[in-house]
Amino acid sequence: MERYDAIVIGTGSAMIIVSRLLAMKPDARIAVIDKDKAGGICLTRGCIPSKLIISPVEVLYDLEKLQNLIHAEIKGVDFSGIMKRMREKVNRESEMIEKSLNEADNIDYFKERAEFVGKYEIKAGKEVIRSDRIFIGSGSRPLVPKIPGLNKAGFLTSDSILEIDSMPESLAIIGGGYVALEYGNFFARAGCDVKIIEMLPRILYNEEPEISKLVEEELSRHAEIYTSHKVVRVERKGESKSVIAVGERGERTIEAEEILVAVGREPNSDILKPERSGIDVDEKGWIKVDEFLESNVEGVYAIGDANGKYMFRHVANREAVIAFENAFNNARIKMDYSAVPHAVFTQPEVASVGIGEREAVERYGKENILIGFEEMRSPAKGLALNLSGFAKIIVHKDGRILGAHIVGKSASILIQEIVTLMSLKAHFHAIHHSLHIHPALSEVVSWAFSNLMSVDEYHKLVRI
Amino acid sequence: MERYDAIVIGTGSAMIIVSRLLAMKPDARIAVIDKDKAGGICLTRGCIPSKLIISPVEVLYDLEKLQNLIHAEIKGVDFSGIMKRMREKVNRESEMIEKSLNEADNIDYFKERAEFVGKYEIKAGKEVIRSDRIFIGSGSRPLVPKIPGLNKAGFLTSDSILEIDSMPESLAIIGGGYVALEYGNFFARAGCDVKIIEMLPRILYNEEPEISKLVEEELSRHAEIYTSHKVVRVERKGESKSVIAVGERGERTIEAEEILVAVGREPNSDILKPERSGIDVDEKGWIKVDEFLESNVEGVYAIGDANGKYMFRHVANREAVIAFENAFNNARIKMDYSAVPHAVFTQPEVASVGIGEREAVERYGKENILIGFEEMRSPAKGLALNLSGFAKIIVHKDGRILGAHIVGKSASILIQEIVTLMSLKAHFHAIHHSLHIHPALSEVVSWAFSNLMSVDEYHKLVRI
Repeated sequence: MERYDAIVIGTGSAMIIVSRLLAMKPDARIAVIDKDKAGGICLTRGCIPSKLIISPVEVLYDLEKLQNLIHAEIKGVDFSGIMKRMREKVNRESEMIEKSLNEADNIDYFKERAEFVGKYEIKAGKEVIRSDRIFIGSGSRPLVPKIPGLNKAGFLTSDSILEIDSMPESLAIIGGGYVALEYGNFFARAGCDVKIIEMLPRILYNEEPEISKLVEEELSRHAEIYTSHKVVRVERKGESKSVIAVGERGERTIEAEEILVAVGREPNSDILKPERSGIDVDEKGWIKVDEFLESNVEGVYAIGDANGKYMFRHVANREAVIAFENAFNNARIKMDYSAVPHAVFTQPEVASVGIGEREAVERYGKENILIGFEEMRSPAKGLALNLSGFAKIIVHKDGRILGAHIVGKSASILIQEIVTLMSLKAHFHAIHHSLHIHPALSEVVSWAFSNLMSVDEYHKLVRI
Repeated sequence: MERYDAIVIGTGSAMIIVSRLLAMKPDARIAVIDKDKAGGICLTRGCIPSKLIISPVEVLYDLEKLQNLIHAEIKGVDFSGIMKRMREKVNRESEMIEKSLNEADNIDYFKERAEFVGKYEIKAGKEVIRSDRIFIGSGSRPLVPKIPGLNKAGFLTSDSILEIDSMPESLAIIGGGYVALEYGNFFARAGCDVKIIEMLPRILYNEEPEISKLVEEELSRHAEIYTSHKVVRVERKGESKSVIAVGERGERTIEAEEILVAVGREPNSDILKPERSGIDVDEKGWIKVDEFLESNVEGVYAIGDANGKYMFRHVANREAVIAFENAFNNARIKMDYSAVPHAVFTQPEVASVGIGEREAVERYGKENILIGFEEMRSPAKGLALNLSGFAKIIVHKDGRILGAHIVGKSASILIQEIVTLMSLKAHFHAIHHSLHIHPALSEVVSWAFSNLMSVDEYHKLVRI
């Protein structure tokens, strides 16, 4: 049985572990296992292809805001061109990773399924290999709920949507989270007849309610959105598919040429079988890890989607570094999730870091919380671009920044300054140490920090 | 002679002093003098009206980048609509300020010229008033160079351009700094035939040469740019105007319907006559102040353009706070200019903070400097939007961030994170403490900090 200094499962963020190990110990022997195209979910089926697809319509939203001043006729979006560009860029990058894996002397690259067969032992294809340092970066896959008729009617997921070449005339989307919304927003603005069906009372349920409301309001101009609707069955009618959903007012039939299922992700533990190695998983199958990202089996670490915590590439990258340092340099670094930002690339764009108002109030008491608020159109730049949206900041009276929630143009960039302050554990006053270019959009952030008010005052100002 | 607790000259950033003084001492008596529309240059003749005019064409640039994927026909820019919107917003705001000045019990508002007549004594219109706390926020005005024939031919400045209602068919711009470029970029993209004439060897001469080069490259697709050309005379020929400039290859005649002169700004000291009060000015007429923003006459402070340091509203606002604290609370706070950012709102957009490469090398020695570089199209979001541009970071090996220079979409927002780190005097490694959303454009900043190299290596990578 072949023994390695490290076995790495997955070729996404886990590749950081491979390169760090080789940099530290150039003669280390490493096995890398991945059944799929090299590069991990983010590159091959996640953020990168999806952003290559959806980003171009941003400009249509910006143009819509200025339609009184700039007269333009949109002739159409070149859907197959967008898909072709996406595949070229993803494939080129993936092939580069594959090439470097194949050419590296110290790496045995198994393009096979990985399956635990015993303690520290993994079967990669037909071979059984062994290491006392195993890194599970095996990702996740789209969760497909059991809906009668769905399989028979056929559907797309965030994986298979990357393979289509022509835009459906109409698309029913089951789900109202960020994947559903990013694709829903793209297709709707690109000219497809989009219908979004969400079981919960609002879309983007994990965001602040004010943010869900604005995104729904603006996207509703281009798409039909059904919240509080539970899909009960799917039927196929000739070329068209019917999604039957039950809302407060009874059953509703939503017809579309195609269906996209985007209700969440599930682990690959059924393939990986970690239990055979004594590795604990939670009730859903995510690998359980401690704050050092180590599983209950010493030397076995899980990073990225595999541990089921935060399914973002930027978190997985950080986890990879920490797992490496803990595994090989005995660093005992804890992974800090207190300032994890994320974005939803809809129009309006959403970005958020830390906790929301409800959690802040529950955790610290309403009397200890201050909320800052500013609208995108208050600074001159926002006014000039006729922007909608706002920044909502949540701080503790003791000085801590607890969370920030931004919706509107460039939200994913605007949030960064706050992430930086939170990561440095800076007092919320620190935002005013730095000058904000006048009139740049970042003024909306500093102004929000200047407008701190009690939770009650906030709710008098912003009704939801 | 009326005596006041404070005399404030100018209604721009200096209004911060008025409101802070009234908040601290509600019965303070204040004289406010401004001969012009209330609100200061920024609101009435500077950043705000100019951004209201120029910002809408941003979207045309974004669309140009994506023209292979999004097919749109631009029918035209509603110039008079843009100008009307600008005037409405500026006038509304200015009138609000004027109203509040007129209605405040403790404020005597003189809409008159201010003129020093003796120590601590100012003539406002016909009245002479006195205070031992005087704040000069008297701004600046467009500098019009002595060019034969210019006055006779007629021209626009950044002031008078706000009054035009129809777009000239062609526009010759004398100057290549940020005002010249912002208007040049706007008019060119809006369909006007723009010719920019700069005496220096490159446009945006205060920016890094790499930045000048990219802006020139991209803007040249829409405008003619003549660098190293000195304007020697202007002639009027019927409806058209000729700007005669001398370059390396001799004289060149540039014809246009209208001329915009944008070569810099000059002080209003000839009106204000500070020398009568014993207040020192420099050779150009800017009020000389120490690091506490106090002039050589105790109790007399100068802020904003008036002191000739950094002519940015965000600097003036900070200076107003510091002058107030030093004048009334004996705070002895020094104004810190080490992390002053600025932006040029062209397409591509430019943003910069701290010092450039040349100054860094001169000040600290090449061997102590590292440069970080990343292109906008490297992160997935930049690739998706087909962006041009880059981030260039300059750090000292001892950990200090010395400067950052960004060109491309959203530069004015992307720079903010670095301004924050510089203001907190953070080590350059601190950028990596914070997570950067993948794939948001802010990755270009963190990646640039990951790519630090020697000055020589940088110039092998980036040829200029």
